[in-house]
This record gives sequence, C-alpha cells and structure tokens, in this order.
Amino acid sequence: MSDTPQTTRFARRMQNAHRSFIREILKVTANPEIISFAGGLPGPDYFPVDEIREATNRVLKEAGVAALQYSSSEGYPPLREWVAERYRTRYGLDIDPDEVLITNGSQQGLDLLGKVFIDPGDSVLLEAPGYLGAIQALGMYEPEFAAVPLTDTGIAVDGLAERLRTTDVKLCYTVPTFQNPSGITYDLPTREAVARLMEQSSTVFVEDDPYSELRFMGEDLPPIRKHLQAGVMLGTFSKIVAPGLRLGWVCAGEDVMERLLIARQGADLQSNGLAQLIVHRYLTDYDLGEHIEQIRAAYGRRRNTMVAMIDEHFPPEVHCTRPEGGMFLWLTLPEGVSAMELLELAIEQNVAFVPGQAFYVVDIPDRHLRLNFSNASEDRIEEGILRLSRALRGLLG
Amino acid sequence: MSDTPQTTRFARRMQNAHRSFIREILKVTANPEIISFAGGLPGPDYFPVDEIREATNRVLKEAGVAALQYSSSEGYPPLREWVAERYRTRYGLDIDPDEVLITNGSQQGLDLLGKVFIDPGDSVLLEAPGYLGAIQALGMYEPEFAAVPLTDTGIAVDGLAERLRTTDVKLCYTVPTFQNPSGITYDLPTREAVARLMEQSSTVFVEDDPYSELRFMGEDLPPIRKHLQAGVMLGTFSKIVAPGLRLGWVCAGEDVMERLLIARQGADLQSNGLAQLIVHRYLTDYDLGEHIEQIRAAYGRRRNTMVAMIDEHFPPEVHCTRPEGGMFLWLTLPEGVSAMELLELAIEQNVAFVPGQAFYVVDIPDRHLRLNFSNASEDRIEEGILRLSRALRGLLG
Repeated sequence: MSDTPQTTRFARRMQNAHRSFIREILKVTANPEIISFAGGLPGPDYFPVDEIREATNRVLKEAGVAALQYSSSEGYPPLREWVAERYRTRYGLDIDPDEVLITNGSQQGLDLLGKVFIDPGDSVLLEAPGYLGAIQALGMYEPEFAAVPLTDTGIAVDGLAERLRTTDVKLCYTVPTFQNPSGITYDLPTREAVARLMEQSSTVFVEDDPYSELRFMGEDLPPIRKHLQAGVMLGTFSKIVAPGLRLGWVCAGEDVMERLLIARQGADLQSNGLAQLIVHRYLTDYDLGEHIEQIRAAYGRRRNTMVAMIDEHFPPEVHCTRPEGGMFLWLTLPEGVSAMELLELAIEQNVAFVPGQAFYVVDIPDRHLRLNFSNASEDRIEEGILRLSRALRGLLG
Repeated sequence: MSDTPQTTRFARRMQNAHRSFIREILKVTANPEIISFAGGLPGPDYFPVDEIREATNRVLKEAGVAALQYSSSEGYPPLREWVAERYRTRYGLDIDPDEVLITNGSQQGLDLLGKVFIDPGDSVLLEAPGYLGAIQALGMYEPEFAAVPLTDTGIAVDGLAERLRTTDVKLCYTVPTFQNPSGITYDLPTREAVARLMEQSSTVFVEDDPYSELRFMGEDLPPIRKHLQAGVMLGTFSKIVAPGLRLGWVCAGEDVMERLLIARQGADLQSNGLAQLIVHRYLTDYDLGEHIEQIRAAYGRRRNTMVAMIDEHFPPEVHCTRPEGGMFLWLTLPEGVSAMELLELAIEQNVAFVPGQAFYVVDIPDRHLRLNFSNASEDRIEEGILRLSRALRGLLG
C-alpha cells in the first residue's frame, strides 16, 4: 500500500516513540554465527515441551470446546487462585484471587497500568538504569520520567525520599529482585525503607518481579508489598514455564482492579484461554519445584562461567555486578570508554550485547552494557566472552 | 488489599470508562437456565477441537522449544503470508506479508490504532449503531466521537459526506459486512461511494471484517479497500477457527505498520507464539473451506429459525433486519417502547439480549435490541424467541 497524507497524522505520543533497540538487535543476532548476550531470553533447553504437549492433550480432551470459546477478561479462575496461593506459600501474603488479573505477560500489565493511571505530564519514577519495557509501555502515556540511581543494595533511598519530597510522583516502577538490566537486588533495609516512604506518599507503587524464582545462591527476600498496605505487583509465567505462551499477571486492590479490567476489555478482551488452561494444567500435573531447581542450577552455572571468564579476560577496571539470580550482568566500562563503540567492534567479532543507553530516560551515560547469561550454553558463553574481550582490547588500544 | 489515596488518582481517560455492558450481561447468562442471545459468541459445536489438538502435537514435536520461546512482534511469518494470500485469493488484493501484523484478536488492532492515531479531542467517526468494542478501545484515547446512521444499504453516504466536509475527522471506523450490531451490509454502490469520499480526505479509514467469511446467502462483496489506495483492514481467526486462541490481524501500509509495531512492543511484545504455530498448522493441514461451509450452513439454519420465529410470534410493528451472513439480528421496537424495560422482563423469562443503547455514542435511542443467532441451537432459539415474545407482549400490554 502506498503512503498517503493519512499516514502523516500520527498521535503526539508517537513522536518520540521508537522501536525497541533490543528487539532490533535480536534481528541482527538471528545470524547463528553471532553469540548473543543481548536478548532477555530464558534458556530454551529448559522449556517443558513434552509436558506442555501432554497438558494440551488433556485440556482439549477434557474441556473440549470450552477451551476455545471466549472466556472471562479477568482470567481463568483456577490460574488466578494458583497465583494467590503462590504468594501465600512463598511469602505469607494474603492475596485474594479476585485481586489477580491474568495478562499477556507482565508487559501487558505495564501497558494497562499506564492507561489507568498516567495523564500526559504526570511524573513517573524509574530506577536508573531501568527496565526498557517499562520505559516503552509507560512512555506511550506521555509522562515526565524521572529516575533514581541504583546502588549495590538497591534504589538510592535518599534520592527516592528527596524525589518524593519535591515532586508529585504519580507512579513509581521498580524491579527489586535481580533487576533488569543491572542484576541488582534491594537488600532488606532498602525494601523496608522504600515501603515506609511509599506508605507516606500517594504514589502508586509498582513492584515487578519476573526473576525472584530464579535465585541460585543466597536467601529469598520478601516483596516490598509485604511491608506495605497497598501497591501493585506484576508477575509472569515467562521465566518459570515459557515466554511464548504470553501469560503473566497484575495483582492489585479492588479499586485498581476494577479500572484495569475496563482497560483490559478495550485492549484485547482477554488472554488466550487455551494457554491459560494449559499452563494451569502444567502447574497442577507436574513438579514445578523440580523444574525451577533445574533452571536455577543451569543459570547459576552459566552466571558463574560468565563472571569467571570476565574476571580472567577483562581488564580489572571493568566493573561487573555479581547477581545471586536472574538473567543479567551489568558492566561498567572505564570513564570515557563508549559502550556504543564497543558494540560495533563486538558485532565485528560476532558477539552482541545491549549498550546501557537503552535503559536510561535522563542523564544517559554511555559506559554500561547488559549481558544476558541465561540463554547461551556454557561453551558459547566462554567463546562469547573471549570475543568480547578481543573487542574490548581493540577499543582500549 | 485495602484501598488507599493512591487508588483515587486514576487518569482522566478512566472517568467515563465503564465495564463492557455485554461482558457484564455474559455473567448473568452464565446461569444455564437463561437462553442468551446477548453475547457475540460463535457456535462452539463447530470449533475444530480434535484438529487443534493434532496440530498442537505436530507443532510441539517439530518446532520443539522454538514454539515456546519469545518470537517476533510482527507475528509468525507463515501466518502473515497466509493472511496476505487470503486477501489475494478472495479479492485479488495485492497485500505484502510485511503489511500484516498479527494481534490478539482484531480487538487489539483497535487499541493499537487508537494509540497510534488518536490525540485527546480528535474526531473519530463511527457507524450508528456501532461496534461496542471499538467504542471501548478507541474511547480510551479520549476522542470526540461522532456517528453517521446506517441505512439498509450501509452507512448513509450523504451523512458521511457532510460530516467529512464539516469536521476534520481523524479516523473513521466501519464494519461494512454483516455489521455488529445491526447485521447490515454495505451494498456495492455504497462501498464505492465511501471509497471515493475517503480517497479525497485525510481521514484514516478503518475497515473491520470479522464476519464476511460467514456468508450463508447472496454474493460476496469486495472490501472497500479494494476501491481505495490506502486504508487499514482488521481481521480475525476468532470466527473461522476459534476465539479463545485470541489471534487476529491488522493490515496497513508501511508507515502505519512501523508505528503499530512500536505500540505493539510496548503493549505486550508479541502474540502467543504457540497459538500462532497451531493456527497456521491447522490452516495448512486441514480443509478450511469445508470447515467454513459447515459453519455457514449451521448459522444460516439458525438465522432462518430465528427470523421465522420472530415473523410468526412478534407483532408486525417490530422491525427486524434480514442479514445474509454474520451473527446478529437487529430489532427496532415501536416508537415509545423501551428495550431496557424489555430486557428486565426478558430476564424474568430467562432469555437475554443486548439493548441497543450500548452501541451508540451520541443521540442514544432506547428502542433497539441486538440478537445473536450463532451461539444457540435451533431448539434453544425457538424456545428463546417464544420467551422473548412473552416478555414483549407483557410490555406492549
């Protein structure tokens, strides 16, 4: 189709919207010669393919046509119950299944929260660096973004307090455990301090937790919501079952849920009903704990391999986070060394990563990179880090 | 969770947003004693359950982990090719697969179009009556709605011309074939006239077509896009395969597609990858033509049963459309008789429908009702129309 004057009439919100840098890099890395640490992809070796196939057969034999008909916007009730029960078992949190909305991955939860809460010009607070998907989803509602830096123990509490004191922050988005992109986890004092600050404010506090099930060392920490009367939690089946099924959830109080549901009906009516039945059947019929143990062990080995290779082959002035779980390392290059330039040299060496710039909304530094360790095998991680160290030596001269 | 001051800070767009009346009625009609003509549900008797099960087994055996990993935001390439080829085969339309974005039903296409095109206050033109899902999806972007009445041959061309002459219409949304809620189909002269008017304007023309495959009498008509250089088409697998799989598409030119893709990445990254593989496999391995023939024959019988019962049992002053396909009849009550009052009496008689009010954005009349004929068996249709005629006699006295 040809373009016409019609196509020049886009909404204002599209003026500063760009394609996801990461999803564009993923196209480059479709070339199998490239070892990619760029995507946020789980390790496919641990997808329960046979179990999903068996679960599908059972679901379609038992539920029949009901598995394929329209169903509720809220989501499949037993799946909502499973989510509530999981919060109870893991953290002793008292969540009602009615407070759980099944979404297309937690990404859709972000879009719905933006729709429900953000008017143009509203202040939205992120971590610096912050999750790119949140920048994209919430950015569509034309907020004024602000950001508070991360430290090794989580968000800078002083900076957060100062920001809340000086700005009427509508919504604050955080990933407190194995954060994307940094791998950083808020320690317990930070969690409690954030909860206290939020308790005193009228800011909508959003706690996204895609990764906490993927802890391979150290002790579990409770969600910030555990110390907070209200607050919105996001979760996903993408990392414990499979991302292609596009199922996650938003957990929120009644008044918020009522609005999320209205937004959801307009957005796409409901999540895939068959996928909801399949995932629930999988969670019920198989040993999820054992499955998660396998993933944790594998990701732990991959993380250790990557960290060890970096320690051995990178110059000591490159700083690297040491996450106890999740999927990402965060590297800081020496002052004045550009991650964007490194990416060009890296692509020549057939290795890819995401430059840190993508994860900032203000004061954008160019000396960071995100490395994913969950997707590639240990062999590929070793080879990829060697290639990256060659690119780095080329840059540092 | 308790509600706090946080929950009173909703965005302005939520002030006039309400839950879908239809989806709320669907909850009432979960009572099996109620015969419901309310939902827009396909007849589940014709969902290809066994074929979907077989297709799933093949997909998971052949594609393995790839079926469960993240995949492209644009959609599964062979499924996009199938959509383009279908336009070519049915209408001789030359669509490139790159102009097809796979969405979660066509409902998500509406949400993405709203996001890409509509700024608050923009004029959006609908049919009167118009599709409720469009009112909900586009309404979230705070347009000024206007509406042009439908006649028996489609949208009132004079009214459309006048509106385009006097208003800077940003987007015009239509369902030209077996319209929801009215069942009305634009005839060929109306299609050509609409195309000419749109060709001369800078309005974004959106043509939604969920139903044209469901024609059980009369001759196929080409989409308006066939007579138009540009324009956006929406389509869905919900009515020819199954709605619970939540797969549809938007078809648009390169410049629009680029923006839709950005909006889509923020909204939920991509559609369910497994469902896309399953549907493509189903379309490839089975005889879709034969399947659609079965649906058409069944819906034709149901429509004929409903129309015959109405002719026999309703007072002659009740007007009823005579659609040649689709899923809905549209009834007009005598002047001064309220469809909302009729609904109350109908529920007492254990039969349900959607009052016409839900489908208007301006000048809201209360003398219409939408009846769905695709979901219930002929026996249930006969009994339901008898119950409705009793309710009607109760109201007319």
